[in-house]
Amino acid sequence: MLLDDMILVSVDDHVVEPADLFTHHLSAAWKSRAPRVVRKKDGSDVWFFEGQQVPSIALHAVVGRPREEYGMESTNFEQLRPGTWNVHERIRDMNANGVLASLCFPSFPGCCGALWSKTRDKGVALTMLRAYNDWHIDEWSGAYPGRFIPVALPPLWDPKGMADEIRRVAKKGCHAISFSENPEKIGLPSLHAEHWDPFWSACSDEGAIVCMHVGTGAATAYTAMDSPVDVMLTLQPINSVNCAADLLWSRVLRKFPRLRIALCEGGIGWVPHFLERADYVYEHHRAWTRQSFGAKRPSDVFREQIVTCFVDDPIGIANRHAIGIDSITWECNYPHAGTTWPRSPEQLAQLLRDVPDTEVDQITHGNALRHFRLDPFAHVAVERCRVGALRAQARDVDVSVSSKGGKAPSADRTKPVTSQDVVRQLASAFATPAE
Amino acid sequence: MLLDDMILVSVDDHVVEPADLFTHHLSAAWKSRAPRVVRKKDGSDVWFFEGQQVPSIALHAVVGRPREEYGMESTNFEQLRPGTWNVHERIRDMNANGVLASLCFPSFPGCCGALWSKTRDKGVALTMLRAYNDWHIDEWSGAYPGRFIPVALPPLWDPKGMADEIRRVAKKGCHAISFSENPEKIGLPSLHAEHWDPFWSACSDEGAIVCMHVGTGAATAYTAMDSPVDVMLTLQPINSVNCAADLLWSRVLRKFPRLRIALCEGGIGWVPHFLERADYVYEHHRAWTRQSFGAKRPSDVFREQIVTCFVDDPIGIANRHAIGIDSITWECNYPHAGTTWPRSPEQLAQLLRDVPDTEVDQITHGNALRHFRLDPFAHVAVERCRVGALRAQARDVDVSVSSKGGKAPSADRTKPVTSQDVVRQLASAFATPAE
Repeated sequence: MLLDDMILVSVDDHVVEPADLFTHHLSAAWKSRAPRVVRKKDGSDVWFFEGQQVPSIALHAVVGRPREEYGMESTNFEQLRPGTWNVHERIRDMNANGVLASLCFPSFPGCCGALWSKTRDKGVALTMLRAYNDWHIDEWSGAYPGRFIPVALPPLWDPKGMADEIRRVAKKGCHAISFSENPEKIGLPSLHAEHWDPFWSACSDEGAIVCMHVGTGAATAYTAMDSPVDVMLTLQPINSVNCAADLLWSRVLRKFPRLRIALCEGGIGWVPHFLERADYVYEHHRAWTRQSFGAKRPSDVFREQIVTCFVDDPIGIANRHAIGIDSITWECNYPHAGTTWPRSPEQLAQLLRDVPDTEVDQITHGNALRHFRLDPFAHVAVERCRVGALRAQARDVDVSVSSKGGKAPSADRTKPVTSQDVVRQLASAFATPAE
Repeated sequence: MLLDDMILVSVDDHVVEPADLFTHHLSAAWKSRAPRVVRKKDGSDVWFFEGQQVPSIALHAVVGRPREEYGMESTNFEQLRPGTWNVHERIRDMNANGVLASLCFPSFPGCCGALWSKTRDKGVALTMLRAYNDWHIDEWSGAYPGRFIPVALPPLWDPKGMADEIRRVAKKGCHAISFSENPEKIGLPSLHAEHWDPFWSACSDEGAIVCMHVGTGAATAYTAMDSPVDVMLTLQPINSVNCAADLLWSRVLRKFPRLRIALCEGGIGWVPHFLERADYVYEHHRAWTRQSFGAKRPSDVFREQIVTCFVDDPIGIANRHAIGIDSITWECNYPHAGTTWPRSPEQLAQLLRDVPDTEVDQITHGNALRHFRLDPFAHVAVERCRVGALRAQARDVDVSVSSKGGKAPSADRTKPVTSQDVVRQLASAFATPAE
């Protein structure tokens, strides 16, 4: 397929929340309780909520910087590319990259809204969470119909409340819900607990896909604190492998056979080996572990219910039929360091050069639109949705890299950066008082 | 290749230590301090050393049992297949399975000898460790020249002492050393510490391969204690993936370019995706993480220095050239639950049916003999080394399954076995006093 003819839908990007997020979505009585952006004396911006600083306005939002600055956290809005927080600039950046539609995970509340589940006053938490969802669905995604896949945050502390929120946002056209890839690691019951059944049941009934973004359960594993940070970067997909195993052997998929779950930023190249191993374990061990998949194998259930997501994954594409050609989706991961922006069409054209057109269509957008239930063509004529047409609207967008400055993760420029350095760097952002 | 014509060398099996292990390898003065087997009042056998029971005589040694009993720990010698601890019976079992040669990891001292590093009196520890190595090299492996790849345990608490022991066993023809896949997780400095340089240096100088068996660092990850145990079984290779990342980005491989490391029981199907990810991280992030591989990529270094090992891995074999055809080795994993004994030739013939003969030879034995430095053909004529010839010597070996009894991991037979059940089962084995 010609590069300009591709249609690209990304199921994993991130929004940096603008400072006026809560302005239009709360009653006057609640506005004083809303999170607000505060500029600290050191020049950094933080969200301030319920008497505390919230970690990072924009974790890892380094798009547009030179690679030398990928390890520098943006600490105020001036250091961010405006497309990270301004929806009009975001659309221009999407056009410049030939991306038709995008699902944007939150930043400051955490990918699955863990912030609200840690809020002591659950009345405040639920009010802010709903205002957030309304802003995300109506204001951010609603600004450009057909260009965003809205995703909602559920009130993690209350499975029945989660079901209510899923039904509420479904009426507004939101059919994707962010959830933790391992809720036990954030202090909640595990995936195996019946506790969550009202949530799974509501997602299943409403046809809402559950998004489990990497990093929403356990932090990425450090092999050792003095390991180079590259170890952690290399091992990032392991969180999704763990999550896939947990899901596959849990009662959840078998009890809710219409439920679909997306492993966001999980990659796909590991899937064939994982599925073979799962089937081997089933064949070899089920006599004593007491598992039953009836007439199916574990790999069948995975392929029916798990949606996989990749940024750049040659071996995964080569083995795509062992993964499941109906479930592979693409992600741009704007504005994080792993993004392929602004060269995603070139990278995908190279990656998919030997793939038949019908499969290219499935992988680049068909699967995403079906699983995440977006119909962009109801809003934009299909010929205007292709890479070439979108880029033609964005010839004036400056996609060159530009230094934004910031602190390197470690001072000694002769030594590799370690996991410890990065942990210290994130901690030090909160060493100064907010006000 | 015809099944009967294959030559099979397994680089990962396990020996259950016989009760008379220390009899011929200690002076009279030391014999009273040696670990000894004690039969407890509950009928179980344990090793007793320095006033304490040692966990398990034979962790997971379930070969020959029906699959319903794979979750039952053998707690005394009568419950074990004699081939697990008797070298003559082992050779008969190897013949029955067409296996020419085998590397046998320890059981009661732990795969890399962590027992001795926890022993308070390091004089006792070193003496026992050397006696163990002498038994393993001279008595176990020495009983059938050409049929075993000896592996030595190093005194983990003393890198210079490790170097001494490596040189000592090298003179006895032992060129494989067991080490932890993540020493930090067993209370020692991490792989990144210069601390270990005398050890790496001695292995490099002596041409000794370092074996990092899965489970010698962190325990296999539990996603949650109430997760089905199948999650843990499925995720077992993840320990090796973590180890591979740790090694690849460490200074070790680049500082000691002749050093070779085997990822035992690690599997191979994950390797192509892992290497692509490592190269992507290098390309994308090295500008800020300050890594350098000179003219090479991380994947080049992996293929040159890492030896991979599989039991049964179809997608790995399909992608064997993306892994490294010169480094793939096979393992039988006798007597653990994952073993393919006594049908390994049939399983391999099926797995390798589309692989050219020269590559079959590399994978089934050529790579293993070269990397682990065994020359069986100096002892046994090559025509007598093939599956058909070995099996012809073993027609009287009973390979049928036989119930040995034992306690199921959980009492409620209607529910899947959980990680918690297995943790409790192992703990309960030590609930009764030793004497």
